[in-house]
Amino acid sequence: MNMHPVVERLIDVLGSSAVVWRSREMAAYVEDWRGRHAGKAMCVALPSSTEEVSAIVKLCAREQIPILPQGGNTSLCGGAVPSGGEPAPVVVNLARMRHVRSVDVDNHTMEVEAGCVLADIQALAAQHGLLYPISLGSEGSCQIGGNISTNAGGTGVLRYGNTRENILGLEVVLADGTIWDGLRGLRKDNTGLDLKHLFIAAEGTMGIVTAAILKLHPLPRAYAFAWVAVRSPHDALQLLTQCRAAFGPRLTAFEMMNAAQLNLVLEHVPGRRNPLAGNHNWHVLVELADDQEGAEGSQDMQRLLEKAYAQGLLLDAAIAVSEAHRHEMWQVRHSVSEANKKAGVGLTSDTAVPVSRVPDFIDKATAAVREIVPEIGVVVVAHLGDGNVHFIPFFSFKQWASLDAPEATAESIRRAVNDAAYALDGTFSAEHGVGQVYVSQRARYKLPVELAMMRAVKQAFDPHDLLNPGRLLP
Amino acid sequence: MNMHPVVERLIDVLGSSAVVWRSREMAAYVEDWRGRHAGKAMCVALPSSTEEVSAIVKLCAREQIPILPQGGNTSLCGGAVPSGGEPAPVVVNLARMRHVRSVDVDNHTMEVEAGCVLADIQALAAQHGLLYPISLGSEGSCQIGGNISTNAGGTGVLRYGNTRENILGLEVVLADGTIWDGLRGLRKDNTGLDLKHLFIAAEGTMGIVTAAILKLHPLPRAYAFAWVAVRSPHDALQLLTQCRAAFGPRLTAFEMMNAAQLNLVLEHVPGRRNPLAGNHNWHVLVELADDQEGAEGSQDMQRLLEKAYAQGLLLDAAIAVSEAHRHEMWQVRHSVSEANKKAGVGLTSDTAVPVSRVPDFIDKATAAVREIVPEIGVVVVAHLGDGNVHFIPFFSFKQWASLDAPEATAESIRRAVNDAAYALDGTFSAEHGVGQVYVSQRARYKLPVELAMMRAVKQAFDPHDLLNPGRLLP
Repeated sequence: MNMHPVVERLIDVLGSSAVVWRSREMAAYVEDWRGRHAGKAMCVALPSSTEEVSAIVKLCAREQIPILPQGGNTSLCGGAVPSGGEPAPVVVNLARMRHVRSVDVDNHTMEVEAGCVLADIQALAAQHGLLYPISLGSEGSCQIGGNISTNAGGTGVLRYGNTRENILGLEVVLADGTIWDGLRGLRKDNTGLDLKHLFIAAEGTMGIVTAAILKLHPLPRAYAFAWVAVRSPHDALQLLTQCRAAFGPRLTAFEMMNAAQLNLVLEHVPGRRNPLAGNHNWHVLVELADDQEGAEGSQDMQRLLEKAYAQGLLLDAAIAVSEAHRHEMWQVRHSVSEANKKAGVGLTSDTAVPVSRVPDFIDKATAAVREIVPEIGVVVVAHLGDGNVHFIPFFSFKQWASLDAPEATAESIRRAVNDAAYALDGTFSAEHGVGQVYVSQRARYKLPVELAMMRAVKQAFDPHDLLNPGRLLP
Repeated sequence: MNMHPVVERLIDVLGSSAVVWRSREMAAYVEDWRGRHAGKAMCVALPSSTEEVSAIVKLCAREQIPILPQGGNTSLCGGAVPSGGEPAPVVVNLARMRHVRSVDVDNHTMEVEAGCVLADIQALAAQHGLLYPISLGSEGSCQIGGNISTNAGGTGVLRYGNTRENILGLEVVLADGTIWDGLRGLRKDNTGLDLKHLFIAAEGTMGIVTAAILKLHPLPRAYAFAWVAVRSPHDALQLLTQCRAAFGPRLTAFEMMNAAQLNLVLEHVPGRRNPLAGNHNWHVLVELADDQEGAEGSQDMQRLLEKAYAQGLLLDAAIAVSEAHRHEMWQVRHSVSEANKKAGVGLTSDTAVPVSRVPDFIDKATAAVREIVPEIGVVVVAHLGDGNVHFIPFFSFKQWASLDAPEATAESIRRAVNDAAYALDGTFSAEHGVGQVYVSQRARYKLPVELAMMRAVKQAFDPHDLLNPGRLLP
């Protein structure tokens, strides 16, 4: 097999153990974890330092070879694997840059390299009595560089914000190989444009993030948790407003799912049980955290729920009586992806609308998809506190197999859901990013002036369109 | 007096009551409130709508007349008044755009026009049981558009972040007069670059902010407050770390001042009294907020301070026994600007360093300025929780008058302070911005790659350099 001269030169620079170029060895890097997207790469480069990343970029820039930066390859929208442009890109996988450079306890910061795994960062912070608050399903394998490049959200956003709000400084290799050392651990720095925001959520199109200074928080010591049945999303929203007023920043999660979602979990994931005795249409998970030992979170939760019950806002509730009990109820929530994958074909959406409009959105999106397929199931699992609704029109495998034109139907259903979100000032991608899957949505929904501004910035930073071409910016 | 043809056309577009062009009437718009900076303007335009702002910008763009956007004119670094380039700019003052477009209680958001005064926004939020958390000395006259354009900080940053963290959406008039409607009230939206960050802290150089969607928070119901005397900044830092661990997000302020600062307030501002009986070298103000009525903040504060006292971390403390008492102690802190102005010539700095390095910074900056003027006073007032130190080398009027070359001395002192901050990975402008005063500092301290990136973005957005030329970007 003939090696491309660029591969040879990369081997010269990085050593042969840091360049993967045989097809079978590249498989894990060019196909996504769900097996939905696969592409071709010229090779995979595995740099161990910022200087090596810079050398790779300079080499590729000279030869006009596109570059695809890659973290843990856990994208839900094909964002981390090649999609087939020519020439095939060099995948720059950051996994070997996994050094924690420093922890500053009094400053509540940590400087980490891009390849650090999220769960490892969480664990190290906890050893220092601190919290890195981003938490999501893939935290055992996703990397901080990918989190930053997609502005990852997850379950802690209500209290702590998205990844963006937890980044103080960045180190980035720019499109010409220049290293920008923006590693400042400051809470306040108003000396010009805050350049780090050009790289956060840019999905590797503006530069390669190689390191970051993360903002850490005090580690909560005590949690209170309730599983609550409500009549409707409207009632869930009223309960949310009451919880925010009563608990303020103690409120760490307010999640919602419908009966269809809960039933899929109970049917398809062994060991999961219904937290409540009866059957209810809508379910809410409420969590609050306290920083002082001996805080009375569960009593405060109890008091609020009693009041809400008296108002007719809730139908039933279970407050966790132990950490094990809380964990068991969270497990139901964390099992939705597994359940849905086993149960059928879900056309997962990642919409967000203003929190106040979630009930309206669910009604309108349901009506819209049932105009297309009257008998379609609707599964809803939402980070209600953030207005982020995974609205999932759902087919059994049998229904799906019986469709005449499944892909066209899926496309029109997805469009109906996102149209409903946009009509309520919402978005088609709250936390997953754009990747490959949402490129057409972006063209449909973003304003021309927004696309023009993005293009102008991209042109200024990567004039030869070498960094992740065709992604994010058309 | 002959009118410039552009002024005539602005009158045609806006009406004569919305264009100020006589010199004496322009005075309030071209000189800053402290009387330190004054410049010339062609005229002052007072638009009442986004469309009018767009019309002004289009007209100026056609004639290549520079534009200086202006809010409440409360800049501390000459950022809001002209500085003397040719041709003199059209000042676009947003004061007439002061409409609150909507309040969405369940979404915790408010849509406001740029000219809304900060204190009015705070008051309106409070009427809905909500909080807009940015709070600063000039809140009675500064406007939200200026807050956004400078990423204003103030006393609430420790818990709520800077202005940037409290903005969800923006409406901006771009340099060619195009209106960008980025008014989305979403907590999560990952559909490309987050363009609003290009206008926040840009000081009017990238576009004119005309409206915003603000993030609101639950309104705290109960405050606990303590005035604490400590031996040193080092001990203050240890106390901060303990407060963060014990109180988490309940901690809303952690401010510090030295004896020199306290004494200036007590001497020069009538009605202020020492919160503690004795004389101490360093003082800390600690505040925590609770969202539930009947919370035990003061008891929790008492408990923590007792523990810290037992460890020898503090010398004396007073816990506020009433809202009036809390207010009285805050007044001491809020009187520092008035006191310092009356007492002499303070070379105010706006440095920030990592929180952990504040003690080291104060030591090094003190040594550095005393190498220049051995007998100089050092006044320190700091948002310690944010690492933001207003380190103020201080002359009596008599000392100042006796200097041979006061401006050159001041310049070398300022440089020594900022050099000390930079040597500890800090910054010369934490919350005031760049304005006119810090332009030379920026050239000294920003990395060439950062200046190049800023220039590239500016070039992409305002190729003819019409928006606030010479500011922010050289």
